[in-house]
Amino acid sequence: MQDGQDIGYDVPARVGMAEDEVQTPALIVDLDAFEANLAQMRDDCAAMGVALRPHGKMHKCAEVALRQVAMGATGICCQKLSEAEAFARAGLRDVMVTNQVTDPLRIRRLARLAGQVRVSVCVDDAANVAELSRAAVAEGVTLEVLVEIDCGSGRCGVTPGAAAVALARAVADAEGLSFAGLQAYHGGAQHIRDADERAVTVAGVIDKARKTVSALEAAGLPCGVVGGGGTGTYPYEGRSGVYTELQCGSYAFMDADYGRVRDPEALGVGRYRQALFVLSSVISTARAKGGVCDAGLKALAVDSGLPVVSGLPGVVYAGASDEHGLLDAPQGAVRLNQRVRLVPGHCDPTVNLYDWIVAMRGGRVEALWPVTARGKLY
Amino acid sequence: MQDGQDIGYDVPARVGMAEDEVQTPALIVDLDAFEANLAQMRDDCAAMGVALRPHGKMHKCAEVALRQVAMGATGICCQKLSEAEAFARAGLRDVMVTNQVTDPLRIRRLARLAGQVRVSVCVDDAANVAELSRAAVAEGVTLEVLVEIDCGSGRCGVTPGAAAVALARAVADAEGLSFAGLQAYHGGAQHIRDADERAVTVAGVIDKARKTVSALEAAGLPCGVVGGGGTGTYPYEGRSGVYTELQCGSYAFMDADYGRVRDPEALGVGRYRQALFVLSSVISTARAKGGVCDAGLKALAVDSGLPVVSGLPGVVYAGASDEHGLLDAPQGAVRLNQRVRLVPGHCDPTVNLYDWIVAMRGGRVEALWPVTARGKLY
Repeated sequence: MQDGQDIGYDVPARVGMAEDEVQTPALIVDLDAFEANLAQMRDDCAAMGVALRPHGKMHKCAEVALRQVAMGATGICCQKLSEAEAFARAGLRDVMVTNQVTDPLRIRRLARLAGQVRVSVCVDDAANVAELSRAAVAEGVTLEVLVEIDCGSGRCGVTPGAAAVALARAVADAEGLSFAGLQAYHGGAQHIRDADERAVTVAGVIDKARKTVSALEAAGLPCGVVGGGGTGTYPYEGRSGVYTELQCGSYAFMDADYGRVRDPEALGVGRYRQALFVLSSVISTARAKGGVCDAGLKALAVDSGLPVVSGLPGVVYAGASDEHGLLDAPQGAVRLNQRVRLVPGHCDPTVNLYDWIVAMRGGRVEALWPVTARGKLY
Repeated sequence: MQDGQDIGYDVPARVGMAEDEVQTPALIVDLDAFEANLAQMRDDCAAMGVALRPHGKMHKCAEVALRQVAMGATGICCQKLSEAEAFARAGLRDVMVTNQVTDPLRIRRLARLAGQVRVSVCVDDAANVAELSRAAVAEGVTLEVLVEIDCGSGRCGVTPGAAAVALARAVADAEGLSFAGLQAYHGGAQHIRDADERAVTVAGVIDKARKTVSALEAAGLPCGVVGGGGTGTYPYEGRSGVYTELQCGSYAFMDADYGRVRDPEALGVGRYRQALFVLSSVISTARAKGGVCDAGLKALAVDSGLPVVSGLPGVVYAGASDEHGLLDAPQGAVRLNQRVRLVPGHCDPTVNLYDWIVAMRGGRVEALWPVTARGKLY
């Protein structure tokens, strides 16, 4: 690769480059922090006696997923079928789609994927169970199916208890399907800032899961897997005695929103280091209040707030437009072409903006990882 | 392409498919509306006697840019160098980077690009002018340089008047550079909802541009180009007698935020039709309040508000999470697998999420256009 010929256009960096040379905005991962995060979650899960199936929707990167599996994860979660297809192509052998697959063409794709790797999927609708069964039979595969309950999000999932038992019975009776267990995840609970409020919410989630697992057992439908939990709540689910497999995602990279949880030490969250940054450059210092950097709405998700500037006291990311970020700073505190590390508010949709992760160690680029499932929304 | 084999994973659709078969979420463009929008802007600019250089940062799609040029546009604007590189690779011969290019490696790339196609760039810093000059000389090219003024955004650009003249003088005196004119764009003005407030703001912008152009002329530095204006304000700049080239972008596709401008008829905005939609599918109807669709934060930019549901009275997009959208609807108003057209709040960062534009006419897929410069942020 010739200097300046492909760098920037095709890739944002080259192995061995210093951070100041990386073409920006770029998504960088601090490998020391990342590896420590993976080890911490492995150790936590081992101590609690639960399995870990990390969520690939956060990183969408096969290099990350393969490292998670190499460190003991049972497989990977995906939120979209095309994500699962991308991970399977990249060598992952066990993918769970923690979502409903209902479109006819998508169901056929799912059944085909189950002929290649181990696949599980969630349901919350009886007609969908029948469609999945027909496709599995047509393709000559067995699909592992989890019944999803609504444990408080008000999103997907059937009502805990009897409705879940009826749906699980339909799965167990359907040709080509195998009843694999229960999916009981509450996304909103991950980000509740107050410790007591979060504890109460998670207790409700666990209670719904526990009662449904009991009802299923009483109906002769034992759960092989009870899955759920995220970076913000996993110690609760992990110690509950109900959950068998945790689905944390953010812990590997972390973000500014998790940084705003008020009792990080009491929770698992405090055990994880910020590994993910958007590296940006100052492209203008013409404004009196500071400078302008090259990372705006196309470089950072702002749904959970503006990014936080890392390591530059007094410098504040004060506003985002499509391609610009306003950096408020004292006179002379930022200079043209200076690199600025930004901690994104929300890791998942930020990672999904990039084709490459620039993996850094000791201030140098160690590797470039493709974001395998970027834009795989289907 | 085999049915269900590549569809969804590699591409969201196939030519000839009905809208209900498109794998979702997908970015669709209504070709009739799109073509009408392109014709309307061409006619408006012709009537006002100004040139049009549409902004490619909105669509990032060479198929769109080539159609704009075929209909008389002088060239294309880009906001990032890698966007310009991508458009040049795709056959565009005249690209203006309406932004500062300051990183040393990026400057070398810019100079190289100028050896292949016509390139212009903006400056707001004297040291940057010197760097651009060195690179142009080293590469044996001439870079056309516009001086950017801050006309009220408080972002990039020098103070109008004397500072702009001094910088233009530096450009004109620098080897390898040619002083091309003035860049005077106010992004925030595009989205001011109130007609009077917007008129006052734009009048201020035009006044700053006019005085700077006069000062430059008085200094013997006539502006070949005075560029700026956007979809929300272009009739003002177009009729000002100051601007020579308009840089509108959104008019080709439009979005929900432009739909919220309060006096669309008085403005150009009312002349443009909504051509861009995120096509989504209902994947769950388990919740009592309506359904859940498959387009969330990774499928839609929410910086300018949640998307608006098109053509389904009573159905409201009420909340976005990473991969889900909550559709509040009366009982029975949405059904599983139903396709829902969503008008995104903000077109630019929404388009940047997708690898493909699905071009539709009369309810059928007519073409698949790659989003050429997607993720080209560098």
